[in-house]
Amino acid sequence: MSETVTTSISQVFPDSILVKGYDLAAMIGRYRFGDVVYLLMTGDLPAGREGEMMEAMLVASAEHSINAPSVHAARTVAGCGVPMQSAMAAGVSAIGDYHGGAGEACARILQDALQQHPHEDIAALAESLVADFRQRKARLPGFGHRFHTPADPRSQRLLALADAWEISGPHVALARAIERALERSLGRPLPMNVDGAMAAILSDMGVAWRFNKAVFIIARTAGLAAHVHEEMTTGRPLAFAGKRTIRYTGPAKRPLP
Amino acid sequence: MSETVTTSISQVFPDSILVKGYDLAAMIGRYRFGDVVYLLMTGDLPAGREGEMMEAMLVASAEHSINAPSVHAARTVAGCGVPMQSAMAAGVSAIGDYHGGAGEACARILQDALQQHPHEDIAALAESLVADFRQRKARLPGFGHRFHTPADPRSQRLLALADAWEISGPHVALARAIERALERSLGRPLPMNVDGAMAAILSDMGVAWRFNKAVFIIARTAGLAAHVHEEMTTGRPLAFAGKRTIRYTGPAKRPLP
Amino acid sequence: MSETVTTSISQVFPDSILVKGYDLAAMIGRYRFGDVVYLLMTGDLPAGREGEMMEAMLVASAEHSINAPSVHAARTVAGCGVPMQSAMAAGVSAIGDYHGGAGEACARILQDALQQHPHEDIAALAESLVADFRQRKARLPGFGHRFHTPADPRSQRLLALADAWEISGPHVALARAIERALERSLGRPLPMNVDGAMAAILSDMGVAWRFNKAVFIIARTAGLAAHVHEEMTTGRPLAFAGKRTIRYTGPAKRPLP
Amino acid sequence: MSETVTTSISQVFPDSILVKGYDLAAMIGRYRFGDVVYLLMTGDLPAGREGEMMEAMLVASAEHSINAPSVHAARTVAGCGVPMQSAMAAGVSAIGDYHGGAGEACARILQDALQQHPHEDIAALAESLVADFRQRKARLPGFGHRFHTPADPRSQRLLALADAWEISGPHVALARAIERALERSLGRPLPMNVDGAMAAILSDMGVAWRFNKAVFIIARTAGLAAHVHEEMTTGRPLAFAGKRTIRYTGPAKRPLP
Repeated sequence: MSETVTTSISQVFPDSILVKGYDLAAMIGRYRFGDVVYLLMTGDLPAGREGEMMEAMLVASAEHSINAPSVHAARTVAGCGVPMQSAMAAGVSAIGDYHGGAGEACARILQDALQQHPHEDIAALAESLVADFRQRKARLPGFGHRFHTPADPRSQRLLALADAWEISGPHVALARAIERALERSLGRPLPMNVDGAMAAILSDMGVAWRFNKAVFIIARTAGLAAHVHEEMTTGRPLAFAGKRTIRYTGPAKRPLP
Repeated sequence: MSETVTTSISQVFPDSILVKGYDLAAMIGRYRFGDVVYLLMTGDLPAGREGEMMEAMLVASAEHSINAPSVHAARTVAGCGVPMQSAMAAGVSAIGDYHGGAGEACARILQDALQQHPHEDIAALAESLVADFRQRKARLPGFGHRFHTPADPRSQRLLALADAWEISGPHVALARAIERALERSLGRPLPMNVDGAMAAILSDMGVAWRFNKAVFIIARTAGLAAHVHEEMTTGRPLAFAGKRTIRYTGPAKRPLP
Repeated sequence: MSETVTTSISQVFPDSILVKGYDLAAMIGRYRFGDVVYLLMTGDLPAGREGEMMEAMLVASAEHSINAPSVHAARTVAGCGVPMQSAMAAGVSAIGDYHGGAGEACARILQDALQQHPHEDIAALAESLVADFRQRKARLPGFGHRFHTPADPRSQRLLALADAWEISGPHVALARAIERALERSLGRPLPMNVDGAMAAILSDMGVAWRFNKAVFIIARTAGLAAHVHEEMTTGRPLAFAGKRTIRYTGPAKRPLP
Repeated sequence: MSETVTTSISQVFPDSILVKGYDLAAMIGRYRFGDVVYLLMTGDLPAGREGEMMEAMLVASAEHSINAPSVHAARTVAGCGVPMQSAMAAGVSAIGDYHGGAGEACARILQDALQQHPHEDIAALAESLVADFRQRKARLPGFGHRFHTPADPRSQRLLALADAWEISGPHVALARAIERALERSLGRPLPMNVDGAMAAILSDMGVAWRFNKAVFIIARTAGLAAHVHEEMTTGRPLAFAGKRTIRYTGPAKRPLP
């Protein structure tokens, strides 16, 4: 039963660690974390501003609110007498198809559409995708948000940066064409949410669709860590599951430094 | 049984998300992910280069090797027909006291020692800590590495940056004094490993000891994502657990761009 | 956002716990665990020998071998300095579509087929199911085993009991018809494996298809517990992931008492 | 780095599976699940009624209420678009030191006390254990319940069965002596809860203390399965985390058949 497993990710030696062939120690302090995430997902360091773009997406996804189901799961477990990683793992396991998972589905649709119809007009492609989903009475993942209406403040900002940093390409164009086609079809706007914007931008950065959820998870572990720590240091054992009212006690809105 | 849970982390409104009082959308593209991680762990954005230092630590911990137990657990689960987050959560759950957990224990020792003995000479404090551990025949967490000998390439680089960026303070000084005391006591060097260096630096950045494992987890989810993706796209179902030989097929050592 | 969640499972009072309306304390020592599992999955205690049948399936699935991916994940995590439940949870998370998950898929096929074609001849139904899978070049879940050839010793025993205890009904009949249709179509036998046999029997017991994986999980936590305990008490920290050769040191084959 | 891992649990052959040397297929339908759990935890099949006693404990722990943190975590994750095992694993990960974990701590105290003081009078041993905990202002795990007062209905029933089935021995005697010593010391009764009773009984059955949490986990996966299924089939996506009011819709109290 002995077989060989192949890996293309890293090699380790007593005096060095190579990630995709690059010396990890030499990257410390010289490259952004976003650069290394991009390296791990595409196989090379950014040629342009993809590392900054990755950082922007990590910032956008780092934290949302205590009501996110992943936070709920993590804080519930955190109150049960477990170590940090256990509560964080429970939070990560909640990042499924309905919570942080729309990006994976959206990126797959965008990547498949452009790969299968490389020569088709973007607007026509968008129309046919929307028509197909409407006919199946399904929701197009990555568009609309149950809470952030009319627009998701994160997606607008990310798309503006992707344009400014010359990252936007055919996938972003297709996502925007879908936005227009949806509005025509529904008679009201259903703008790209943060999952949809990240799906389009990551696709234009050459990141495979399966990594979309992973980018969200990497980012959100930061927020989960803060919540688990808060529950462990200020909560009562076993109390989170039964608590019903949330009161915010942190700083009021303040300007950025 | 209805109680109030308090949180100081974030607030969410239809048109904005506030993290510790700062507008998240406005931080996108303007602040590093490391800045936001620091914000979530200390309550404010960096006044100095703490955000860059956090990024350096995230880079240092992003990936090590396919032999890490967290990777092993994640790839094993990835081969079982599960979604991305499930395999990543299994990997996170492996980051326990013996794997990526030495930093938490080390930071606690450093923070407790300086808090309980604020006026004691650092060298004397280090001597007494080492003597105490030696007497209990226990290992001081954060020093020595079973594979990276004589020195961990990551810890040297991180400490040099902490010095250059004026982040090193009493905790780094204490950790270095422990290094010297250990060498005297053992008759051979047992240098700080990456967990120990991060514990000292994060402590000087004002990060509570319980967050040490979390910093490692946030970083390592990047490497886990790459391994899970590789297993899902190139591995055979159920095969990883039984495979015995690892063959590296990625790029050979290459210079940084 | 306050909503009501409804549940039909249990109620708790200071002096009693009611499960589906029955007093839990009164069931202790009077009903089998298998009876209570059946109660939780169907809403009532068994009228016939369904509780014994459930116990038989729990025994059949309690343990297989150290090479099972769920055991591999659990023992890997167990060596990382974590509590019992953390290692067991990692093992449970490995019980996905490819490992212990065939039963869910098989039960769904059987239940859907009989529900959608209640009046069709069983043999004809089996032929059309097999033809459909063959045409799509897909494998019919629940038939064949990569290791237990020619036959899975557990499935034969479970089916014999289901017949003897008068539990076998249309779902078992359909599964057997599929077995015959597969043999005709392939020109060689591809007998029901333990997942397939349990899927058919549980379906005839009125258990919804989604519970198939759960029955396997409940059972296998017993084996996972033994493996995690063995790793924690006899293994070296972090060693399992790197270990390559398995040596069995337990009792040799012995007759049942 | 190739090493040998030893295991004493199972062996697998194409035509048979041996668990602790016994043929698994031959045990199906002939032995209880509780017998096999006992076999996996102690290395042999029961000589007396230990298998029935194990079943009684599995029944006692199978389900409690929707308010249990493990259920809360599992249902939260179940609403996020994940497979069954993922939600169940999150529930298992919540069974920590404060939730279902008191039995592990209690069994360790009982087993250590009797092993270290084999010749001491049970009453005197209990007095000194209680005095020690009272002096450290710590709670003795396994005694008292925040909800089930004055007595936990499950523990009384389990202890009565352990007496009737001649399983009660020195560990049960010590636990009862602690109950008396606690009442004298506190001036009010603080009776054994279900965790304490199971800790004492499992210890008298020869089960190592580390398995206590595992017995609870094996049992509770049954209740978790029911809750996850209910959430998946009747809940709205992402809704559980935000829901605040629980309404029971199952059968009213009814007599056992």
